[in-house]
Amino acid sequence: MSAEPMVGGLAVILCEPQLGENIGAVARAMLNCGLTDLRLVNPRDGWPSEPARAAAAGADIVIDGVRLFDTTEAAIADLQHVYATTARLRDMVKPVMSPDAAADRMVAETAQGGRCGVLFGRERSGLTNDQVALADAAVTFPLNPGFTSLNLAQAVLLIGWEWRKRTAEPMPAETVPAISPPATHGDLVHLFAHLEAELDTGGFFHPPEKRGHTIRNLRNLLTRANMTEQDVKTLHGVITALVQLRRRG
Amino acid sequence: MSAEPMVGGLAVILCEPQLGENIGAVARAMLNCGLTDLRLVNPRDGWPSEPARAAAAGADIVIDGVRLFDTTEAAIADLQHVYATTARLRDMVKPVMSPDAAADRMVAETAQGGRCGVLFGRERSGLTNDQVALADAAVTFPLNPGFTSLNLAQAVLLIGWEWRKRTAEPMPAETVPAISPPATHGDLVHLFAHLEAELDTGGFFHPPEKRGHTIRNLRNLLTRANMTEQDVKTLHGVITALVQLRRRG
Repeated sequence: MSAEPMVGGLAVILCEPQLGENIGAVARAMLNCGLTDLRLVNPRDGWPSEPARAAAAGADIVIDGVRLFDTTEAAIADLQHVYATTARLRDMVKPVMSPDAAADRMVAETAQGGRCGVLFGRERSGLTNDQVALADAAVTFPLNPGFTSLNLAQAVLLIGWEWRKRTAEPMPAETVPAISPPATHGDLVHLFAHLEAELDTGGFFHPPEKRGHTIRNLRNLLTRANMTEQDVKTLHGVITALVQLRRRG
Repeated sequence: MSAEPMVGGLAVILCEPQLGENIGAVARAMLNCGLTDLRLVNPRDGWPSEPARAAAAGADIVIDGVRLFDTTEAAIADLQHVYATTARLRDMVKPVMSPDAAADRMVAETAQGGRCGVLFGRERSGLTNDQVALADAAVTFPLNPGFTSLNLAQAVLLIGWEWRKRTAEPMPAETVPAISPPATHGDLVHLFAHLEAELDTGGFFHPPEKRGHTIRNLRNLLTRANMTEQDVKTLHGVITALVQLRRRG
């Protein structure tokens, strides 16, 4: 499967990742978000890595494009805007922001032709102070303060998700599959007439002074269903079937 | 560790989850987002589940609070607004929206006292058409169309993330740890004077007509560093140390 070309996409830099399968899970998370630039600094178990490829679950384009570096400095040498993900605020004078704010900045920076990347540290311990100091800003994930426990691929996914939302074609707020065209209001009025006639016959509206109110409630209810032409036909059939039951019974 | 009480939080319903460890990973993802209401419909490997507890990695409050149901209908019986996550649009007249739009709706519904929940299907196959039909709306994840491959816990995480962003105390857009107070502009001017005097002595500004322009560049650069009082002291020391090197050399 091919990823969409994502011009100016983010670089994801894993600093001393420990497990190959976590690298693969990162690759998979990245490709979900259309990111393909994965850089590894001193992976503990070396590279290439069969566990990584397996865990990438088809994200081969990312695995195949992995670049290796001996140091974090080397991995970010070509980047102009580097963000360090960190759970703990440190004794360092470094701007700290949420993934939303970081994504806003990275989108703006990329639009001006800048190259951005995000650093992620070792699975258990995260980035060191020296690694964070290399970055322009730190990013923390505003999660449950009583339980913040993202794994590496999830952290990458959230960054990629915020990036993608701002850069990919937006999804419409709400759509409905066009299986059948929406019913016209003439269709609806005809349906109301059918239903209300049968309900009148069946003595449903009592006391009579409540008839208008109940009819409006029914019409509001049925209108909220946003019926299609097919739906209207189906309901005519339902009413008819129920009436025939009533007649037989 | 205790979760923050999240009044009116979402219910997460897993329909026929296959692996206990995936259930545990879901619990972990939920608690990161402050969600604790996990419901299981017919888990394949039964319940309780030691692999689930292990994979929950400390999210015991969620594991301990799991409720079991025989059918999806039973699991959602008390909910008023149900959303079904699905990868594939189906031949059904059902509103489809992004997690952002669904989260907007669920926040509004919860604010009016409504109870909301989100359905997730089996790990490999997702929800069935019958299960999706039970919901008020479908939710799809706008990811790379060439590679959409979220695992169950990641799907739950993204829903929880969008929910949490709208309901938890927002993180400030950008903060800097207050290790030392910001320098005053008097401090900065004093630093500029020190630096520029030493640069004049060293014959740095040549040709003379460029002096004003270069000084402005330096002052802009140093001002962009948003220095603290401590930074200014440090730079005074740096200038002095370099000058002493120059004198000795």
